[in-house]
Amino acid sequence: MTSPAAVRYPIDAIDAMDAAQFSAAFGKVYEHSPWIAERAFAQRPAGGFGSRAAIHAALVATVHSASETEQVELLRAHPELAGKEAAAGSMTAESTSEQSVAGLTALSREEVDRLRALNANYSAKFGFPFIIVARNNTKAAIFGTLAARLHNTREMELRNALAQVGEIARLRLLDLVG
Amino acid sequence: MTSPAAVRYPIDAIDAMDAAQFSAAFGKVYEHSPWIAERAFAQRPAGGFGSRAAIHAALVATVHSASETEQVELLRAHPELAGKEAAAGSMTAESTSEQSVAGLTALSREEVDRLRALNANYSAKFGFPFIIVARNNTKAAIFGTLAARLHNTREMELRNALAQVGEIARLRLLDLVG
Repeated sequence: MTSPAAVRYPIDAIDAMDAAQFSAAFGKVYEHSPWIAERAFAQRPAGGFGSRAAIHAALVATVHSASETEQVELLRAHPELAGKEAAAGSMTAESTSEQSVAGLTALSREEVDRLRALNANYSAKFGFPFIIVARNNTKAAIFGTLAARLHNTREMELRNALAQVGEIARLRLLDLVG
Repeated sequence: MTSPAAVRYPIDAIDAMDAAQFSAAFGKVYEHSPWIAERAFAQRPAGGFGSRAAIHAALVATVHSASETEQVELLRAHPELAGKEAAAGSMTAESTSEQSVAGLTALSREEVDRLRALNANYSAKFGFPFIIVARNNTKAAIFGTLAARLHNTREMELRNALAQVGEIARLRLLDLVG
């Protein structure tokens, strides 16, 4: 997997960070949602997190204990796959890299049209964009899974989307910690 | 969501359990894989886990720090969706309930044939059964996602399957703790 992370932090350095440093380093683990890293930092044990897995666990627990309104805000902070932000070059470095690996930055005109139509159906039905771990799926799998998940209920998709976001966070932490 | 769990444990009772009691209560959170609860218990902090989220975090961290051989064993411990164990009535209570909610225990003959063919392709390609959170997906979404994920690489599917297993564990813990 390619990685946009130029900086990697050893766990000892992370456990010596203050709140602002932690937010600067890990705020981007959740797309445009630094509040998750900030709340997780407030739960840091006296002895420090001690491991990458413990940081991930604190972040995931923060997301699951947030209100549904906050969870939906988190989902809405994600760019549409091959959407307007991608076309405008305004995605985060992380999303740009992840979508590129999956081949979503080199779609044919027809593929872009098909993906945008699927995304529009998805957003209209659920109220948040379709989210999938781009690094864990080929282009064909992404198209097929998006079409498949349109058959779910909003309650199901909220849980599926949060599970995907948790795995995206885990992979971003693999790039950042060690 | 329906739940097969007759017993729910308050967190204080969980934190007073010894290793054998914890394994008996939580061994089934991962399908036929009590070693995960047992290893997680060995990491229990001196003050106890303190929350359901902390138990889930310890379990997920245990899975991610296991060897790839162990991870594949965990995946192989799962029944095929609407497969031989389902037909024989030999699935765990948890899987039986989850597959039933998704409508997989009431498939037409044609649907069973289609699902078994897809499952056979999946197992042949990746070496473990297709795993999806049945409670988070309708029947149509499950069929579509299985066909879609056949387009992935084994490395991708190993990560996708483990993420699904982590979400299954989270939902089983919601049934067991509180």
